[in-house]
Amino acid sequence: MNSLPPTLDALIEELGRLPGIGPKSAQRIALALIVRGPAAAHRLADVLVTATERLGRCDRCGALAEGARCPICDDPARDPRIVLVVEGDRDVWAFERARRFRGTYHVLGGVISPMDGVGPDDLAIGRLIARVEAEPIEEVVVATSPTVEGETTATYLARVLAGRVGVSRLATGVPVGGELEYVDELTLARALEGRRPFDDAGPRR
Amino acid sequence: MNSLPPTLDALIEELGRLPGIGPKSAQRIALALIVRGPAAAHRLADVLVTATERLGRCDRCGALAEGARCPICDDPARDPRIVLVVEGDRDVWAFERARRFRGTYHVLGGVISPMDGVGPDDLAIGRLIARVEAEPIEEVVVATSPTVEGETTATYLARVLAGRVGVSRLATGVPVGGELEYVDELTLARALEGRRPFDDAGPRR
Repeated sequence: MNSLPPTLDALIEELGRLPGIGPKSAQRIALALIVRGPAAAHRLADVLVTATERLGRCDRCGALAEGARCPICDDPARDPRIVLVVEGDRDVWAFERARRFRGTYHVLGGVISPMDGVGPDDLAIGRLIARVEAEPIEEVVVATSPTVEGETTATYLARVLAGRVGVSRLATGVPVGGELEYVDELTLARALEGRRPFDDAGPRR
Repeated sequence: MNSLPPTLDALIEELGRLPGIGPKSAQRIALALIVRGPAAAHRLADVLVTATERLGRCDRCGALAEGARCPICDDPARDPRIVLVVEGDRDVWAFERARRFRGTYHVLGGVISPMDGVGPDDLAIGRLIARVEAEPIEEVVVATSPTVEGETTATYLARVLAGRVGVSRLATGVPVGGELEYVDELTLARALEGRRPFDDAGPRR
């Protein structure tokens, strides 16, 4: 709309570039920011610039970090013997929200995808092998997504890590809270294959 | 999560304060911003601060404006004889998107609501009366929401403007694209009351 003041138009346009923000949300957010005034805008702007300038990658696991190490690798209470390998940052956050994993992570930075030109060398796989050789790691849990690319990546990792360390993967089965009639056949078949006796809560770490 | 770097935590928290942004959206947006890097963050931060610092209210209609007048009031092509009275900025934007109205607006800044302690003096009603007396206005179209407060406000405006200028209101009826069976009874009754002969597209301005 050319009936908006140019700075407002520019703000709505920038907000609309954010993921998941459509034109109407961008307008609503812009208006809320303007109503709150310059002080709140300065605070958000400062946090935004500071975060993007200060954040880099942990030189051990590849997660977002403010210094050389991320808070998880810096935490002496985390078990150094078990490493959970994930595709990206949001997977780390999802496991942290689940509050069950007490080991450390290794962020691959993607998955092997010949279609998109992503090979093993484009991911943090060499660094994972170096960690396995240098650290007291006993088990690597591969937690890539259950997609074709994720499975390919998991298979590749299992092969290159074989003989160096124990490798496991996430259990496949019915999701908690899901209704069985809506679960796909492959998931049901895998849940049946992977069935376990009652009172076996599995390995905890 | 205390497993996130503090600047990332702060960014997610600030983003989560924006309207319509839940915790997961805030995480996704924060990550996207970090991946884009400092240059894009600076651009967004600049636009944000500039917009909130520069934007004020049009001294004629009360819409958001960068100087004394908003782009609509500044546009000599807009018809000065007809004024559409709305509750807030987003209503102006909605009518502008509809691209049918070529007059000017008057933004009340809310509705009369005794429950919330908002009386006529808290809204830009005095300024509307002054405009009606000073400008060549022939018709005021009241476009408050079809809520109890909106209707109260419309009735109040019709009373204070009576004798000074022609006052009309938006047509009430079935929404375009709505299925009749889902339209409420009151709307159906009003649509029937307000029925019009075919080929009468109504006054255009």
